[in-house]
Amino acid sequence: MAILIKSPRAERWIDAVRHHRPDEELRIWPQVGDAADIEFAVVWQPEPGDLARYPNLRAVFSMGAGVDHILADPHLPAGLPIVRLVDSTMTRGMVEYVLHWVLHHHRDFGRYAAAQPGDWTAHPQIPAPQRRVGVMGLGELGGAAARTLARLGFDTAGWSRTERQIEGITCFHGEPGRAHFLARTEILVCLLPLTPATENILDSALFAALPPGAALIHCGRGPHLVEADLLAALDTGHLAAATLDVFPTEPLPPAHPFWTHPRVTVTPHMASLGVARSAAAGFSEAIDLLRAGKLPGNLVDRAAGY
Amino acid sequence: MAILIKSPRAERWIDAVRHHRPDEELRIWPQVGDAADIEFAVVWQPEPGDLARYPNLRAVFSMGAGVDHILADPHLPAGLPIVRLVDSTMTRGMVEYVLHWVLHHHRDFGRYAAAQPGDWTAHPQIPAPQRRVGVMGLGELGGAAARTLARLGFDTAGWSRTERQIEGITCFHGEPGRAHFLARTEILVCLLPLTPATENILDSALFAALPPGAALIHCGRGPHLVEADLLAALDTGHLAAATLDVFPTEPLPPAHPFWTHPRVTVTPHMASLGVARSAAAGFSEAIDLLRAGKLPGNLVDRAAGY
Repeated sequence: MAILIKSPRAERWIDAVRHHRPDEELRIWPQVGDAADIEFAVVWQPEPGDLARYPNLRAVFSMGAGVDHILADPHLPAGLPIVRLVDSTMTRGMVEYVLHWVLHHHRDFGRYAAAQPGDWTAHPQIPAPQRRVGVMGLGELGGAAARTLARLGFDTAGWSRTERQIEGITCFHGEPGRAHFLARTEILVCLLPLTPATENILDSALFAALPPGAALIHCGRGPHLVEADLLAALDTGHLAAATLDVFPTEPLPPAHPFWTHPRVTVTPHMASLGVARSAAAGFSEAIDLLRAGKLPGNLVDRAAGY
Repeated sequence: MAILIKSPRAERWIDAVRHHRPDEELRIWPQVGDAADIEFAVVWQPEPGDLARYPNLRAVFSMGAGVDHILADPHLPAGLPIVRLVDSTMTRGMVEYVLHWVLHHHRDFGRYAAAQPGDWTAHPQIPAPQRRVGVMGLGELGGAAARTLARLGFDTAGWSRTERQIEGITCFHGEPGRAHFLARTEILVCLLPLTPATENILDSALFAALPPGAALIHCGRGPHLVEADLLAALDTGHLAAATLDVFPTEPLPPAHPFWTHPRVTVTPHMASLGVARSAAAGFSEAIDLLRAGKLPGNLVDRAAGY
């Protein structure tokens, strides 16, 4: 039996899986060999239909926190367990990204930078307890980001599909909670999973529900964002600024207006890079559990889409 | 009796002191009236010799965390109590500034920005526990910054004149500890008080003791920095970048090379703006204690210089 690896950065995953499972045979897609040998697959963006080719496949491991790249496959075998990547290094990286850009907008560093060289004007400083930050998505990443912002003193709210309770965070949920959440959010962080319900969620209606002058930090998934709606909300001045790490088309095309928009910061999908070595440790544990007939943690709920 | 206020931004301090001491008479420098009336002085950069003119002066309150602007007066009456500003809003602002710029250097956001528009390269992400940050000065502000960095997972060290012990932080002190502290510090934060011993401390010898590629975040006091030495260390590439909030001459002159240096970020002494209203609450408590014959907290140690 063998473990299949499919990734545009396969080398680091080969090293990582080999480190934890030195005795397993690895197959690097597309050199799959006998399809009947494939017992586990560690993948990023599998080809549609590919995972249905392996009759003895026991589970699929996602190389990223999102699993939409797997669930998008219409031929995905029913009942096949999908294990998400949960990794403390990855969570920490995302918290750092969110924190940096919340502080950037909170303390007006974009405005200071735009006024240089030569401007010596200090702008009023709003205390964190009077700054209302809102995080959409309260899973592994969004929950960790919200808790860290709250500990730093920000007036922090969160919004999720289902009800959550997190100490120190004002939690809203579902469609009824959405308008209340948005109306009080000056700095919005998107860390939702990508599902049919959240695709295109960052649209003109959502932006209009934010208070004037709000800022967006988008480090969820590219297809959450309706790009033209964001540009329109920035150009009317209703949104003050946006920091974007993910895009419907990646790499972001060279001629895209986001690159040069004075109030948009583009980062190249680097908010949190999975660290293969530590991530593969979790997959290795899951392999042991699955072979022992047990279910591992971090299983994807295919009905919910994440 | 009266309270004297001297500040380039006197209005907000007048409001703040009046809010907490509505029945006191306020005098706004230079309209001092009878010098014998002045019982307390709330000051920023008093004129040399001025505080010696008030025979009934009981204490001086500094409008900033630093007190070098008061101790620089050669005619300062011996034994006159000097109360430093300690304010949770100010501490929080400084922690935010330090955190933002540590994350900026830690996550290479300057490098990402310099590569735009159009570059889609993600750079390796170093986990915070492998990032060695060092804070010089472990007083109210430096201690708070170091504790917050350590809580976020950074490998955090501190250096102070006298020995300190802070949980989660590797503490060095004095001359013998300095070289060890600097040799392990990849991101250096300066939050020292300004004293004769720390003036010009950020010089070529200190920069040379940092590892190659280190970054400097300077939000202490302007005269800590030897500007030519910093430019030289940046130009050889030994220092990768510097973020500067304070300068020997402020405002920073328009023709100064820092403004346009590609690896220097200038902010206009905005790292933490004292919030007069909450700061004046502390001064008001100190006035009550002093009139009751007691010593307030946050008294300056004039021998130590802070």
